Amino acid sequence: MIVALAGGIGGSKLLAGLHRILDPQDLVIIGNTGDDIELFGLRVCPDLDTIAYTLSGRINPDSGWGLRDDTFHCLEELKGLGASVWFQLGDRDLATHLFRSHRLQQGATLTQATREICQAQGLESRLLPMTDAYSPTWIETDAGRLHFQEYFVRDRFRPQVKGIEFGNGSPAPSEGLLDSIREAQAIILCPSNPLISIGPILSVSGVREALAASKAPVTAISPIVGGTALKGPAAKMMAELGMDVSASGVAWMYRDFVDMFILDACDRTQGEAIERHGMRAIVEDTLMETLDDKVRLAEKALQHALKGNR
Amino acid sequence: MIVALAGGIGGSKLLAGLHRILDPQDLVIIGNTGDDIELFGLRVCPDLDTIAYTLSGRINPDSGWGLRDDTFHCLEELKGLGASVWFQLGDRDLATHLFRSHRLQQGATLTQATREICQAQGLESRLLPMTDAYSPTWIETDAGRLHFQEYFVRDRFRPQVKGIEFGNGSPAPSEGLLDSIREAQAIILCPSNPLISIGPILSVSGVREALAASKAPVTAISPIVGGTALKGPAAKMMAELGMDVSASGVAWMYRDFVDMFILDACDRTQGEAIERHGMRAIVEDTLMETLDDKVRLAEKALQHALKGNR
Repeated sequence: MIVALAGGIGGSKLLAGLHRILDPQDLVIIGNTGDDIELFGLRVCPDLDTIAYTLSGRINPDSGWGLRDDTFHCLEELKGLGASVWFQLGDRDLATHLFRSHRLQQGATLTQATREICQAQGLESRLLPMTDAYSPTWIETDAGRLHFQEYFVRDRFRPQVKGIEFGNGSPAPSEGLLDSIREAQAIILCPSNPLISIGPILSVSGVREALAASKAPVTAISPIVGGTALKGPAAKMMAELGMDVSASGVAWMYRDFVDMFILDACDRTQGEAIERHGMRAIVEDTLMETLDDKVRLAEKALQHALKGNR
Repeated sequence: MIVALAGGIGGSKLLAGLHRILDPQDLVIIGNTGDDIELFGLRVCPDLDTIAYTLSGRINPDSGWGLRDDTFHCLEELKGLGASVWFQLGDRDLATHLFRSHRLQQGATLTQATREICQAQGLESRLLPMTDAYSPTWIETDAGRLHFQEYFVRDRFRPQVKGIEFGNGSPAPSEGLLDSIREAQAIILCPSNPLISIGPILSVSGVREALAASKAPVTAISPIVGGTALKGPAAKMMAELGMDVSASGVAWMYRDFVDMFILDACDRTQGEAIERHGMRAIVEDTLMETLDDKVRLAEKALQHALKGNR
């Protein structure tokens, strides 16, 4: 069993590769729910949905989120009703949110609802939300304290970040989550934003400790390449928080539990600095544009991970 | 001020005529909410929506319900998720249900939410739900006790009706409802199903008494023409309940508060029987196919109503 920790779009690229080369039943994904938001009374889980839509091949390939060939008629009407519609909700995508919200209302856990949504899409890999609690990430900025999606989508990560707060501090892990970390043969941290994709997962009660205690090697892939993030606000946020915007800076955040750190070839000079954080540094070409790229990086990561010993 | 009591499609035809000939601000509509249903955690009010969509000119003219040019992408996806999707919910239509449900969650009353929905559509007439409570109509049938929409939409009114139960018996009137009846210049009962459109409104606490006590004349228009209903299950239900399936049978149900009863020319022989119920019988051509028909019948009804004295 391979366990992968992932956020949304960035993480999904590597997951697409892992999903392709593994028996899907051997892949367990721990998904970030710190970006969850309640909109119009619905529970929206963008990262979980991006992962499920990606692995089922239904993702909108142009945007990397939402469903292929979706329409936005409901959102247009909501706008007409005077509602605030800065968050894009496609008509087809809405079905996922309606179904999930209704199941939660009926007393199902988010883990159960997610399993049902994944099964309906034919997914054989397990997708575990990091927690069953609603525990959104809050961003302290020069424009005030913002829900992560207000900061990220509505304000397009323009405000300056002063701090990050993970929902209710330390939410309880979802059912089976710590067991899956304990039983994993290898654990992979996808090249997701370390602050707001992997960070919330690490804030879940017991996760960091379980990763450190796991007998399986833990391999991380840097989302920072050449001092910048390929997508999203990781580099900007790290800089605003006074952090070292580099592969080494990311490795430092994971120093207490990561055994191997894969950095891009263009950052090879950081290898020594990374090894000083107490982990092996591995240089690979980490760009993932085509499916071939994703498969190749997934294969490399898996090879290193399965060879690694603790 | 003219007050009209109405259900969905049948009632909306006359309302379209009344809305055309009156200053819209002078029209107050009391809408049936006995057909409300909770679907996927959303509060759906089919009769209220049919009225608002009709008066705003946005109704789907082919079906008489839902919005013009709507799509059903969300419903298709819900079906894919294994949800039961016998009730049609268009993507644009869904926005109304989402908006309303969210406002109710936020603590707004159905009256407030309905006002906001109507205002956003540019409606100047007041549309009052009969009650702010969720008080659906239950149909006792040979196939068991069914929510009205299960009976009506899902089972296409095939089960045999044994009894009708109005939600929680006698729900409280919505804010301002009894005042509007007291202050009306004329009150019109649209040619809606007397059992499951007008019946639930009459079950609201104080409504029947307020109609009987009102100084304004109360005029009803028969939904039964030539012993049958032009649309819907009224005739079938009345027959199954052992009632007289005729204009006179409808008039009898309204005998304690109606002053004038408009029946179709083809039922003119029932005039005497209707007058024995203690009301004036007025013969008109009541078919409403074109907008001209609707305007003409609305004009006639209004003329009779405003001439009537109590």
